[in-house]
Amino acid sequence: MDINTAKQTLDELERRQYAYRHAMSIIMNDASTVAPPDSYEPRGVAVGILAGEEFQLSTSKEMQDAVAYLYDHKEEAGEEYWRRAELLREKLRKLNVIPVEEYVAYQQLMSDANSAWRKAKKENDFPAFAPFIEKIVATQKHFAELTDPGKDPYDVALDAHEEGTNMAYYDRFFDEIKSVLIPLIAKVQEKERPDDSWLTGSFSVAKQRRLSDTVMDAFLLDRNHCSLGETEHPYTSGTSSKDVRLTTHYYEHDPIASVYSVIHEGGHANYELHVDPRYDYNCLGGGASMAMHESQSRFWENYVGKSKGFITWLWPKFAKLFPRQTAGHTAEEFYRCINLAEPSLVRTEADELTYSLHILIRYEIEKDLFAGRLAVNDIPEAWNRKYKEYMGLDVPNDTRGCLQDVHWSQGSFGYFPTYSLGTAYSAQILHQMRKELPFDELVAADNLQPIMDWLTERIYRFGSLKKPGTYVPEITGEPFTAKYYTDYLTEKYSDLYDL
Amino acid sequence: MDINTAKQTLDELERRQYAYRHAMSIIMNDASTVAPPDSYEPRGVAVGILAGEEFQLSTSKEMQDAVAYLYDHKEEAGEEYWRRAELLREKLRKLNVIPVEEYVAYQQLMSDANSAWRKAKKENDFPAFAPFIEKIVATQKHFAELTDPGKDPYDVALDAHEEGTNMAYYDRFFDEIKSVLIPLIAKVQEKERPDDSWLTGSFSVAKQRRLSDTVMDAFLLDRNHCSLGETEHPYTSGTSSKDVRLTTHYYEHDPIASVYSVIHEGGHANYELHVDPRYDYNCLGGGASMAMHESQSRFWENYVGKSKGFITWLWPKFAKLFPRQTAGHTAEEFYRCINLAEPSLVRTEADELTYSLHILIRYEIEKDLFAGRLAVNDIPEAWNRKYKEYMGLDVPNDTRGCLQDVHWSQGSFGYFPTYSLGTAYSAQILHQMRKELPFDELVAADNLQPIMDWLTERIYRFGSLKKPGTYVPEITGEPFTAKYYTDYLTEKYSDLYDL
Repeated sequence: MDINTAKQTLDELERRQYAYRHAMSIIMNDASTVAPPDSYEPRGVAVGILAGEEFQLSTSKEMQDAVAYLYDHKEEAGEEYWRRAELLREKLRKLNVIPVEEYVAYQQLMSDANSAWRKAKKENDFPAFAPFIEKIVATQKHFAELTDPGKDPYDVALDAHEEGTNMAYYDRFFDEIKSVLIPLIAKVQEKERPDDSWLTGSFSVAKQRRLSDTVMDAFLLDRNHCSLGETEHPYTSGTSSKDVRLTTHYYEHDPIASVYSVIHEGGHANYELHVDPRYDYNCLGGGASMAMHESQSRFWENYVGKSKGFITWLWPKFAKLFPRQTAGHTAEEFYRCINLAEPSLVRTEADELTYSLHILIRYEIEKDLFAGRLAVNDIPEAWNRKYKEYMGLDVPNDTRGCLQDVHWSQGSFGYFPTYSLGTAYSAQILHQMRKELPFDELVAADNLQPIMDWLTERIYRFGSLKKPGTYVPEITGEPFTAKYYTDYLTEKYSDLYDL
Repeated sequence: MDINTAKQTLDELERRQYAYRHAMSIIMNDASTVAPPDSYEPRGVAVGILAGEEFQLSTSKEMQDAVAYLYDHKEEAGEEYWRRAELLREKLRKLNVIPVEEYVAYQQLMSDANSAWRKAKKENDFPAFAPFIEKIVATQKHFAELTDPGKDPYDVALDAHEEGTNMAYYDRFFDEIKSVLIPLIAKVQEKERPDDSWLTGSFSVAKQRRLSDTVMDAFLLDRNHCSLGETEHPYTSGTSSKDVRLTTHYYEHDPIASVYSVIHEGGHANYELHVDPRYDYNCLGGGASMAMHESQSRFWENYVGKSKGFITWLWPKFAKLFPRQTAGHTAEEFYRCINLAEPSLVRTEADELTYSLHILIRYEIEKDLFAGRLAVNDIPEAWNRKYKEYMGLDVPNDTRGCLQDVHWSQGSFGYFPTYSLGTAYSAQILHQMRKELPFDELVAADNLQPIMDWLTERIYRFGSLKKPGTYVPEITGEPFTAKYYTDYLTEKYSDLYDL
């Protein structure tokens, strides 16, 4: 092997891997948007085979050899090839120590767990789902012993979802936000709730679709390279910088939900669309990490989309579409209703202020579960106790309680914390941006291109080239801290609720 | 090798081939319905690789060996495995004698030709497209010499599109219909044209979409296994008996076009949906041939959909959706307008009576082209002369003339004739069905299940198990003849136009 052969081999193998990922991405997007309901059987046959082929490629000897060679020749490899080797090596390191039959059994377990969760959620039957959590956690702990002997398995899970994180990191982070948020939320609770009943009437879905077009234009989403579909749960799925799909869900009695789904998913989409196209067909494509991705979706959703400037800009467009429902109301009321904060049961419906408490609860439960301090059967009790303690709420059933999220059924323990971490990342980034750009003026004028350019220059274009933990320190010149996030929330909600 | 190994190998390889075909089918369907306009680059990368992998599988030594073994052991193989071997062997026979680099160059030529055709059609620039026709025909003739030395290349092309056909077969067929249709059309031309101006106003597309739902229900299309999309040109694409996609196109000023697109594509879809599921993941899945497929789309579109019985059933539903536009009109007028026959320039807009003349013109041109009697540059002149001679029309430009269809740019010489052949197949089948079922009564009551069952039992369930030429003789007990088709048209239009 020489360096050029290694590079060429990696290029060719990654391009082939890309073809399989592309196919599976389009197939799954099709499945959740337009496929006929009973088309799962042929899809399952095809995806099973394609995933198997992709796995063969990922772990092939040529791949292992090329990755090893490039990793061992850092200088000659250069920054991009070496980072690719580093990322692929980490995946291979894990795949190589897990026996194939155990890996396959685990994939099957998650597939079964996902079906079981759907049924259990529908039927409010946690005991039916509990054995799957039990098995998934046991398998993950076993795999962690194989891949990272001596390391705490939950630390392994956290690092797998966000390179460089662990419990010590998140404990500090959550302690910081918990100490600010809980008293802040309590104060907000004592204040009068804005009346948002005028925003809960009937809002034509056809008009909401037109509103989505306005919002996508406002957030500079390039319709030549991204399209909007409709699904039960909104998401974004991208194949490259040239093809990203986002979805939303329209509720007749809530015209606001879809606006912020589109802005949130549009943030994910704009990140993907602005990655340097040279990374399109290798592992540097897409965002840097889950927290970095969420930092951008929530940046656009909250810091831009839920600002007074943007909402004031949006108001006349909204009022023109819905003249009857908005008659007699003002931009200021619209702003207060959109930013209404109150404890709630369901994470995906949470406001900006209470959101991280939902994450905190999941983080604490996952940690206790992995440490053996919490039995699976006791999850509902722990869940309900924490919702009472942190938010003052009684959880009426597990469907709206510990069964609400899909994540555990997909084995995604360690994923939730990245949502809060990303939100805090972008608060610190925003603080820096404000020093360099007239942020409020730009947002109030819907002149978002300078903001997009600023983020592209510092974040988007790099794809996965840089380690996710390096962005905040490099962009802001100081280590990451949750302070900017808590300061932002304190300031915004003190103003909103006159605290 | 033994018989069980051969069978297992074939099953496994065909299942893997299916995964690639499934992926490419979903990717291409996504591309023409919802993909962002500029997403072709990543799609091209992925499809190129997936098609290459599928080609490798198709021509692999394991495949060749398994096919050869099964073909040589007909008794032990049994009907299904032997037919699969026969079909795959025919493909391999051709692929094995065409050098790979020439095959790849030909694929590239067609890809370039398709782009060139789109541009040429848009710009009415036949000379820009002519060199591609030249090269495609030359390559096909060269390939025919390699695969079938001594055989006429156009006979090879016809057989490739419909197993068992050749020029002698089609010459006889077209002579028969030409001798009836040309004088019949002339007689219709002398009669008064029904006034259809009331069907060319403005018809809400949203309501047309609801009409599609009514039509899909009327034709028993199972929405659990098929979905309706929207594209410029309607088509059907199926992955298996469990997942078929059809598309239509809505025109604000023509509410009838989409109804018959849905019924036509629905005919293709119902064929695929009723193939025995045991053929889902091998080459016996899908319809028996192009002509057999078209026989079914046109059966439902014309013989059922454009019958007086069905149109009378549809009328009150249509009138209810469009009360203003239909006020003062009757089911009888609706029937006459839908069946209005007159010569026209564009095949896809042609009525039932004149349709086959469009096909005849293409067939004659292709035949002359392959025989060297017609130069590529003279195609427009020949095209325009024939439209004048057979239909009395002046062709204003090549965009609506010889550039109108996509087929030649895809190398599909020999494809057009299957459209007429299929239509004639189903006329003969209908004649038999009328002896066994109260066809008119069933259609007038929209009680189509007995008709669907009858066709499923005799045609659909077999997929590609039987040779396409065997259906008509087996079902009707006599050899195929165009007589039933010409009799049907003569009777229908004599009645409509009081000839």
